[in-house]
Amino acid sequence: MTDERPEPTVQDVSDWWATSVSRIEPNRIELRGQPVQDLIGSISFPGIIWLMVRGEIATAGQERLLEAALVASVDHGPHAPSIAVARMAATCGIGLNNAVATGVNLLGDVHGGAGEQCMALLADVRQLHQDGTDLATAAAATVQTWQAQSKYLPGFGHRFHTVDPRRDPLLGQVEHAVTDGVVDGTYLRAAHAIERVLAEGSSRPVPINIDGCTAVVYAELGFPPPLARGLFVLSRSVGILAHAWEETGQGRRNKGPMPPSILPTFHDGS
Amino acid sequence: MTDERPEPTVQDVSDWWATSVSRIEPNRIELRGQPVQDLIGSISFPGIIWLMVRGEIATAGQERLLEAALVASVDHGPHAPSIAVARMAATCGIGLNNAVATGVNLLGDVHGGAGEQCMALLADVRQLHQDGTDLATAAAATVQTWQAQSKYLPGFGHRFHTVDPRRDPLLGQVEHAVTDGVVDGTYLRAAHAIERVLAEGSSRPVPINIDGCTAVVYAELGFPPPLARGLFVLSRSVGILAHAWEETGQGRRNKGPMPPSILPTFHDGS
Amino acid sequence: MTDERPEPTVQDVSDWWATSVSRIEPNRIELRGQPVQDLIGSISFPGIIWLMVRGEIATAGQERLLEAALVASVDHGPHAPSIAVARMAATCGIGLNNAVATGVNLLGDVHGGAGEQCMALLADVRQLHQDGTDLATAAAATVQTWQAQSKYLPGFGHRFHTVDPRRDPLLGQVEHAVTDGVVDGTYLRAAHAIERVLAEGSSRPVPINIDGCTAVVYAELGFPPPLARGLFVLSRSVGILAHAWEETGQGRRNKGPMPPSILPTFHDGS
Amino acid sequence: MTDERPEPTVQDVSDWWATSVSRIEPNRIELRGQPVQDLIGSISFPGIIWLMVRGEIATAGQERLLEAALVASVDHGPHAPSIAVARMAATCGIGLNNAVATGVNLLGDVHGGAGEQCMALLADVRQLHQDGTDLATAAAATVQTWQAQSKYLPGFGHRFHTVDPRRDPLLGQVEHAVTDGVVDGTYLRAAHAIERVLAEGSSRPVPINIDGCTAVVYAELGFPPPLARGLFVLSRSVGILAHAWEETGQGRRNKGPMPPSILPTFHDGS
Repeated sequence: MTDERPEPTVQDVSDWWATSVSRIEPNRIELRGQPVQDLIGSISFPGIIWLMVRGEIATAGQERLLEAALVASVDHGPHAPSIAVARMAATCGIGLNNAVATGVNLLGDVHGGAGEQCMALLADVRQLHQDGTDLATAAAATVQTWQAQSKYLPGFGHRFHTVDPRRDPLLGQVEHAVTDGVVDGTYLRAAHAIERVLAEGSSRPVPINIDGCTAVVYAELGFPPPLARGLFVLSRSVGILAHAWEETGQGRRNKGPMPPSILPTFHDGS
Repeated sequence: MTDERPEPTVQDVSDWWATSVSRIEPNRIELRGQPVQDLIGSISFPGIIWLMVRGEIATAGQERLLEAALVASVDHGPHAPSIAVARMAATCGIGLNNAVATGVNLLGDVHGGAGEQCMALLADVRQLHQDGTDLATAAAATVQTWQAQSKYLPGFGHRFHTVDPRRDPLLGQVEHAVTDGVVDGTYLRAAHAIERVLAEGSSRPVPINIDGCTAVVYAELGFPPPLARGLFVLSRSVGILAHAWEETGQGRRNKGPMPPSILPTFHDGS
Repeated sequence: MTDERPEPTVQDVSDWWATSVSRIEPNRIELRGQPVQDLIGSISFPGIIWLMVRGEIATAGQERLLEAALVASVDHGPHAPSIAVARMAATCGIGLNNAVATGVNLLGDVHGGAGEQCMALLADVRQLHQDGTDLATAAAATVQTWQAQSKYLPGFGHRFHTVDPRRDPLLGQVEHAVTDGVVDGTYLRAAHAIERVLAEGSSRPVPINIDGCTAVVYAELGFPPPLARGLFVLSRSVGILAHAWEETGQGRRNKGPMPPSILPTFHDGS
Repeated sequence: MTDERPEPTVQDVSDWWATSVSRIEPNRIELRGQPVQDLIGSISFPGIIWLMVRGEIATAGQERLLEAALVASVDHGPHAPSIAVARMAATCGIGLNNAVATGVNLLGDVHGGAGEQCMALLADVRQLHQDGTDLATAAAATVQTWQAQSKYLPGFGHRFHTVDPRRDPLLGQVEHAVTDGVVDGTYLRAAHAIERVLAEGSSRPVPINIDGCTAVVYAELGFPPPLARGLFVLSRSVGILAHAWEETGQGRRNKGPMPPSILPTFHDGS
């Protein structure tokens, strides 16, 4: 099998693991080409997030907008599955890192993916508009197309909040960034246009939710859609950690979803 | 079994999941008692990390020092197991969140736990010193005790770097914080004392490493030791995400640890 | 918000977690309606796997065929990402269960999903044939349709083996089961027809691989396609555990993908 | 740094990943030295589990006893955290493998580790007895020692069952194996001696539980204690899969621990 192939070399192995994210040599660490000693104490945490995933240094305005989105989605309480499972994990005798990983593992297409999908939705509206359709028509057509495929329009509506309290401050940050010339506002306008389409002729408003708001931010900042989920992971990890840590301090063992008092009732009824 | 017990109630279930981390009601979200709309655009990302895990608002100096530590440990290249597994995971057809969770799952007692253990080591030195022993003696006695139990002294020495390039800038930030009255420097001095003990009579220096430096930061800031691992998780998640994302863009499928070219050699030799 | 809703009750909570998989009451455990004491020592391990996921007792012939498939796919060496990451995880100071979970987490659409996809491919051929097309034509048409969408035909071909040594014994078991009237052989014949299509006019044979063989087994036994991945998880967990356990005994710490000797070369070259 | 070191070679990489679990060459797969084609259709699933983790072929009696233990612990209902988190995970848009991994990740020191700890407890009793103490005294002394360190005696007592329905059939299988000369019964007698110690002078019996029963089996069969957890992982994965799959079929999205009807009550009360 090997007679026609070149002999493998150590260089093949190095190439197999080559990366442009970081360069580690004895006594030298570069992150995206920046010596680490030039970053510590100088760059902000959102700034290094941007640097690591984008490969370049963000402007102050970009950092500020990214930071607002990272802050906004840290937590939505212990009835969110990602938080609940991390709390349960923390009572099972595994490490705090394993508890956080358990929560992050749940941020999938349904739990963490709406932002990613909403970026695609906004991009569809924006593209139609850039191709010459007026914005309202572009939004209506896009909504119709998406709703024909699924009853869930990603980034809009909430089973719990009628107006998400994170909407106004986060979209307000985007408006500031438009004013300051940091972003151009095309995705923000697409989102507003969709909200108007959904408000027309509806008895119950379907406002943009947190996934939609962060999708606007990440789209305006030029992140590719899959990174909407990636950045949500970094943000929600904060809440997951805080909840797992609180649970650790309460001393329960093998916490299940229901309190022990309810178990006899549960089992009689199942 | 149930005759002597009170009937379970819905309140039992609510109590089972009660938390002081967040309060979510329709159209209202509070994080540690702060309405979320007051945080978005106002608080920094390190600031909300502090708020969520500590339950109170950090000072600007505390935030700055925490941020330096979070920045310092985002990545150490693809030969770190946490990074390598995330890159491999990203080629197996699972979500980006699952790839990050895979990496975080590895930050255990050996890979992510050194900071936590080093905080205990520093606390031992500090306690002896506060009880009246001079610092050099306290450090020597503590090192002797710890080395009798394990050949690894957590937070000191590196198999790769002789001087970790993250040491000076990070300890420099702690010194600034001491000067500014943000922290009192007792853990920093304990760490220096240990370095001196290890330098004496040794042919090869055993300087403080990144786990030791961040342990100094987190101890000075008053975090309990397990949160050293928790904060490392938040920091390293950035590098894990950046590497998983880069790998995603390279299009490999089922990436193993060795390049395909080497497999025949591997299998003949195993 | 709550005025029109009925008051929630404890029964709502019980209903939320209701299941027909198991019934647990004080001093009583039933699995799919069978008292556990009637199963221990009586039912085989493949038998209880069938019972738990299908809800009914398998025949001896069904058990035997399922068992052959479970045995066949336990391991494919440490260059498979699922195995490699579990070995690395086992050196990072986390539990053996966490190491196994790390490996299982990688068995996604690309690494563990081929069987599931192959079941759909076989079902397409079978359906065309049952609708009146002769088998060869049905196979050729289906292959053409699938290859137009992806260059990977799930369940066929292997980057490493030209003939997978698991093919003949596993398909042989299916043939026995057809002879014994356990299964009807329609999926087996569909798989053979696809092999013949792929052999025609090709310089390199593209035989059915292990994912294809187990897909034939699971399809013949009437499992829905997603359970092909589920059963693969149960099987491969055995190899993942064996490798993680072997690695544990070797005492490495923080095992990366490359040996330490290669790291200087790696870093010079990156 | 590299001048005194030998040049790294490809062989270093092969050695780094060398294993005695499996040998994979083109068109050849050996598991623990057995060609895979000799195993498929011949060896049972418990038999290959034994082969893979122990490296040798089990006797029929050993296989039967291992199989009984694997069957006994597949499930304990959705109030077990490992099952509950897998069900929640299955509603979040991640793969079935990711849902199973999420459940397995929780089988830590508290949730899955009791069997491992109980093996150490039984070994202590057995050792004292082999050193010349009569069995009752050995058991009493060991219980006293262990209870001085923790109020939980691993493998004994259950918060839910007063007599675990899995106890009698599983210990009965061990008795059969003693009669047949498969195992020698020293761990079984140690377990019975502990039960008697706990029954004396207690108002509430503290019988051996499932973790204790499987610990007896695994100890009698010569497995090292950490594999008690490893084998529990393989067994419980069956229940985790069955529950995750059932949940998948019910169509919920982002299932939390509490039904939506209870959330307003929850949030008012937190």
